[in-house]
Amino acid sequence: MGMKDYFHMVSGDGELSYSQNSSVQKQAWLLNQHILETAIQSLISSEESAKTEGLHVVDLGCGVGPVPLALVSLVVDVMQRKCKELNRDKIPKLVMYMNDLPSNDFNLLFKDLMKLEALKGRDNYGVPSCFVMGAPGSYYDRLFPNNTLHFVHANYTLHWLSQVPPGIHDEQGIPLNKGNIYLSETCPKEVAKAYFTQFEQDLTHFIKLRSEEMVHNGCMLMTLRGRPCPTDSLTWTSFELKLITEALTCLVSEGLIKEEKVDSFNMPCYHASTEQLESIVKKEGSFEVEDSKTSIFDVVPEIEDTWEKAQVITKFIRAFSESILSSHFGKNIMSPLYDKLLDQVFNF
Amino acid sequence: MGMKDYFHMVSGDGELSYSQNSSVQKQAWLLNQHILETAIQSLISSEESAKTEGLHVVDLGCGVGPVPLALVSLVVDVMQRKCKELNRDKIPKLVMYMNDLPSNDFNLLFKDLMKLEALKGRDNYGVPSCFVMGAPGSYYDRLFPNNTLHFVHANYTLHWLSQVPPGIHDEQGIPLNKGNIYLSETCPKEVAKAYFTQFEQDLTHFIKLRSEEMVHNGCMLMTLRGRPCPTDSLTWTSFELKLITEALTCLVSEGLIKEEKVDSFNMPCYHASTEQLESIVKKEGSFEVEDSKTSIFDVVPEIEDTWEKAQVITKFIRAFSESILSSHFGKNIMSPLYDKLLDQVFNF
Repeated sequence: MGMKDYFHMVSGDGELSYSQNSSVQKQAWLLNQHILETAIQSLISSEESAKTEGLHVVDLGCGVGPVPLALVSLVVDVMQRKCKELNRDKIPKLVMYMNDLPSNDFNLLFKDLMKLEALKGRDNYGVPSCFVMGAPGSYYDRLFPNNTLHFVHANYTLHWLSQVPPGIHDEQGIPLNKGNIYLSETCPKEVAKAYFTQFEQDLTHFIKLRSEEMVHNGCMLMTLRGRPCPTDSLTWTSFELKLITEALTCLVSEGLIKEEKVDSFNMPCYHASTEQLESIVKKEGSFEVEDSKTSIFDVVPEIEDTWEKAQVITKFIRAFSESILSSHFGKNIMSPLYDKLLDQVFNF
Repeated sequence: MGMKDYFHMVSGDGELSYSQNSSVQKQAWLLNQHILETAIQSLISSEESAKTEGLHVVDLGCGVGPVPLALVSLVVDVMQRKCKELNRDKIPKLVMYMNDLPSNDFNLLFKDLMKLEALKGRDNYGVPSCFVMGAPGSYYDRLFPNNTLHFVHANYTLHWLSQVPPGIHDEQGIPLNKGNIYLSETCPKEVAKAYFTQFEQDLTHFIKLRSEEMVHNGCMLMTLRGRPCPTDSLTWTSFELKLITEALTCLVSEGLIKEEKVDSFNMPCYHASTEQLESIVKKEGSFEVEDSKTSIFDVVPEIEDTWEKAQVITKFIRAFSESILSSHFGKNIMSPLYDKLLDQVFNF
């Protein structure tokens, strides 16, 4: 498209960051609320917004639960506040598109959204301040016509790859990443390269699609799981993936899982560094990076009881990993797997 | 708004029209396919559409199942065909909003829609020809910002009122419509008036809201259950409501339902005449009536076996009436009620 847009990027790292998934997600963007406020303010201040009937905002990979609800409330709230501050007589209408795969529970999402106080406001003509739409589909595909969106939010989702990277087998089809489920200090360079290549391809494709869907001077905020910055280790592994690997290895030694089953499994995710992210965005060329930062969370609440604390951490890991592990290793193995993981966390 | 738009209106009458609900709905708009084609053609031919990135179409009260799917396919198909006929080098993108109450099964709807061949087409840039969005909410409320929609389709839904008409009780609070669940030849004039007033209010409100949401020169197609035309009887009752009333009366005489329970129940629907519809639309003033017709369906398939035929008819009546009857009379009474109704249909 050749157009240049603002771009906000946040690499949320979490060396010691464990809680329920939704809590991590929520904290991730609450920490970056000022970026969201700045973005909305700049959108409202623009000449274009004075002309438009609605500001079109999408929450990509929104899921269900408190996180998408809190986001909608925040965006409505910020928009109304900023409009008052700017003495804008006409507050633009907000169109909030909630995107996720069609398998997401949109029924529950819509039911929850209808209860939101933020959606109950009406102007003098009885028109709501916010209209909510469901936008089912993969964000690795086009979701909107050209020049539709003013603000794109991808919250804690882009570290998931579109597929397990190809090229992590040798010429005989034997896995190069034996004993691992992701990158590790011991894994061959080819594996690290294959993972990064997949991430680069996915993110480049994602940015290109969004740049087509966005209006000129639109704004995008991406918050994703990253790795500590600075680190030059291309094989850095997060704490939670190390724990899952160890638990799987234990189950192999106990004969509950076959070794080959672990060898053939690879997590379709990538934890990029800020440098990698910025480099991909610049190389793609549609956006300008306006702001970029790495935050470290310690989201486990202050729990004295170490057993309770271990349970919270295990619950967080289970929340993001169970469906993917279950479809490869089978449902029956999930209980012993997470019991093992709980023991490890407790004894850590 | 003071603007004038095209307006297509169809009063679908059904004196002998019985099948499953979805089949009636589907036949209703298939019979009116040429109106849909004409509307889309006029939209595509307009200068505005050459400028716009997308044609925004809503299916109000879409439900789930084969009807909304067939509508999406038809709209995509007609648009592509008409663009070819008009030698338009650029086919506008279609944005299909699927509206229903948040209690509708959007999960199933989205799952079904993703399988549609019509949604799989891509242009030379890999962009789909149609984007599907869910628009949860009541169409008696605003659903979109001003000037959003090019084409509005309300299929077999506007004969449902927003509420049971008030004013069908006397000053002592005693029901004026004793022994009836809707209008009948024996019911007082006040009741007929209260029903029409509610319908007029609802439709006027509906049209006003849509006129705000629609672009200038937009087009609306309403297909709704009507009554035979010409008929000057304001107390005309449809065959299916007569059958339900008779079945309820039988259950009263058998002691299964209390008489007062029937006296206090009223169906929140209205079967208007074409004259009434046209008059309401003209009085509201935002739209011009472009086309208006009454169709009579005989949608029971050619079934020789009268028992089987009676079952099809009962199934159709149950499909639209069960949830509303069940919430007033209780779930336990549903089986004896529809058994009774089946007997009546069979012996008719």
